[in-house]
Amino acid sequence: MGFAEPLPLAGGARLANYELAYETYGTLDANRANAVLVCHALNAGHHVAGVYPADAGIDGVDPAGAVGWWDNMVGPGKPVDTDRFFVIGVNNPGSCFGSTGPHSIDPSTGHPYGASFPVVTVEDWVDAQARLADRLGIARFAAVMGGSLGGMQALAWSVRHPERVAHCIVVASTPKLSAQNIAFNDVARQAILTDPDYHGGDFYAHGVVPRNGLRVARMIGHITYLSDEDMAEKFGRALKADDLQFGYEADFEIESYLRYQGDKFSDYFDANSYLLITKALDYFDPAAAHGGSLAQALAGAQARFLVVSFTTDWRFAPERSREIVKALLDNRHPVTYAEIDAPHGHDAFLLDDPRYHGLVRAYFENIHAGLSETER
Amino acid sequence: MGFAEPLPLAGGARLANYELAYETYGTLDANRANAVLVCHALNAGHHVAGVYPADAGIDGVDPAGAVGWWDNMVGPGKPVDTDRFFVIGVNNPGSCFGSTGPHSIDPSTGHPYGASFPVVTVEDWVDAQARLADRLGIARFAAVMGGSLGGMQALAWSVRHPERVAHCIVVASTPKLSAQNIAFNDVARQAILTDPDYHGGDFYAHGVVPRNGLRVARMIGHITYLSDEDMAEKFGRALKADDLQFGYEADFEIESYLRYQGDKFSDYFDANSYLLITKALDYFDPAAAHGGSLAQALAGAQARFLVVSFTTDWRFAPERSREIVKALLDNRHPVTYAEIDAPHGHDAFLLDDPRYHGLVRAYFENIHAGLSETER
Repeated sequence: MGFAEPLPLAGGARLANYELAYETYGTLDANRANAVLVCHALNAGHHVAGVYPADAGIDGVDPAGAVGWWDNMVGPGKPVDTDRFFVIGVNNPGSCFGSTGPHSIDPSTGHPYGASFPVVTVEDWVDAQARLADRLGIARFAAVMGGSLGGMQALAWSVRHPERVAHCIVVASTPKLSAQNIAFNDVARQAILTDPDYHGGDFYAHGVVPRNGLRVARMIGHITYLSDEDMAEKFGRALKADDLQFGYEADFEIESYLRYQGDKFSDYFDANSYLLITKALDYFDPAAAHGGSLAQALAGAQARFLVVSFTTDWRFAPERSREIVKALLDNRHPVTYAEIDAPHGHDAFLLDDPRYHGLVRAYFENIHAGLSETER
Repeated sequence: MGFAEPLPLAGGARLANYELAYETYGTLDANRANAVLVCHALNAGHHVAGVYPADAGIDGVDPAGAVGWWDNMVGPGKPVDTDRFFVIGVNNPGSCFGSTGPHSIDPSTGHPYGASFPVVTVEDWVDAQARLADRLGIARFAAVMGGSLGGMQALAWSVRHPERVAHCIVVASTPKLSAQNIAFNDVARQAILTDPDYHGGDFYAHGVVPRNGLRVARMIGHITYLSDEDMAEKFGRALKADDLQFGYEADFEIESYLRYQGDKFSDYFDANSYLLITKALDYFDPAAAHGGSLAQALAGAQARFLVVSFTTDWRFAPERSREIVKALLDNRHPVTYAEIDAPHGHDAFLLDDPRYHGLVRAYFENIHAGLSETER
């Protein structure tokens, strides 16, 4: 969907004539009160659920798979049941799955934006999503939800457009990145920025992509998505061959696995988008505008909250979710908090865990989408 | 010191006509029984203690500083007291501070070894160190000690040359790398190997160094040396300027710090050495030759052990040290174990912590260097 009116951005720039790619699942009810917005994380897009036919092209997270990135969560009869809810997935501006981003043509130059695409924030994305909601005639969401960076967007919705969010679901997220989180992001960015094929962000014109940098960036990221325990369980020190090779080919299965993940990612993800999105992660800090008080930042929220964390997530550990819960409780806002004992680290939010999915299912069963909170 | 007789290596190759750079501190006593071998970790060398004059060149860890890398631990009146002990620091073959390594001329070709320098193991280093000890007339060490990768060497000494080690001091180490440890090492290696300036390891001939890859490798490593808590304490989300920059220059202090560490490292460290040494880390696994039983691997050890870990070390966590302690206790070998409550992560082993240094001091005060174990 095209938007002609420029979007003012936190950094001061304005994004003009932009396109937002989105998908919907289920049916919007007569009251327009059963809409659920699902916000995506770093490397996902608007293709949340369902399966594309094999020839549908490169939309969605994984061009090879074409299965929606949260297909185990969203669909008919699933925890977020599209027989009851009208679910919207939207690709954020700056990403690379169909919405306007660094790979898009800058109308003012006729060339791809490249590194000149403005650095966008979580709040900018929320504003873009709000405009999409306006167009779709959705004044208030039954729920806004997301995991990781998606959870930050849900949280920002509850602050920025409090009257438009009935339920806010924040999974495996954090109110702000730690120094260590930022450090990992910056190493990933440095790998991309110093790749000679990056060409200052103008690699499109050179017919190359900074594949090596993007590959290293993804490998670093991937390590932080998995738990040490899970990696030990799945790979341990298992060798690829019978013996050590005494060279620099992969000796261990974990090396092959990570290199494969890096290779696959560098085939489809845009390097400038990676830079942008990690910056949006780094910059997110709703408390900053309130003297560092997250409670003050969340004071005006009107949503009911579900906050979920996973015990072995060391990227955004349970402690970080508890900060959100504490700030909500300080405001006497209604919040349900669950710390799921799951072995899969940060990635757990995308996986099919019975306790986690059972919880989300139960929570959504108690959302009375057809009625306002005061009527039920 | 030059060695003409080829050193047989675990990988099958032989290292011919190699040089070992070493330093000694204190005086070898008449019984030759007060020698302490200090083994270095990834980015250190033979310059363990003392301060070089400013014009001494690039020996030692930090060419700018010229202070020995364990100067707070080793010296007159220090925990490892060179008024009592004769301390030896030796740069391992494959490293880049004076001993033969990838930057050295391969006598068979007349060119630097580059990537053809054989991948060496912790056990290979121990064998090279044993030959140096032979030359110095030291049949048995009062102690062999090291932190991190240095601790692995101390452990390997106790297995490989049990009769030559009276005390084995293993600090912030592990009996083997985890999948996550290997993963971090491999990402670092991939950053170097895919840097176009690496030239397949032959960058010396091209007059360049793979600076970008080495820089990213060091940044990744550095994150794993610090604790999340310590990074939060030291840097948090402190900004370099008053405001966010909405670009890819460093916004946060932690970014500047890490980039600086990466730049500095890439000025003096050899990329091929980095590859080699991380492989030695990955390969270390004394239990592997004993059906995975560390207890069996350590069965023949004759040393008394001191094992030290640090609570916030997530690279080689206390659990990893406890595996060593458990294997020693299974053999009824004498072992002292201390888990030091220190905030500085893996780096704690290099820092001046009163409890840690007090412990090492007390342990060494109880080493009766002049007498054999049976005489005292």
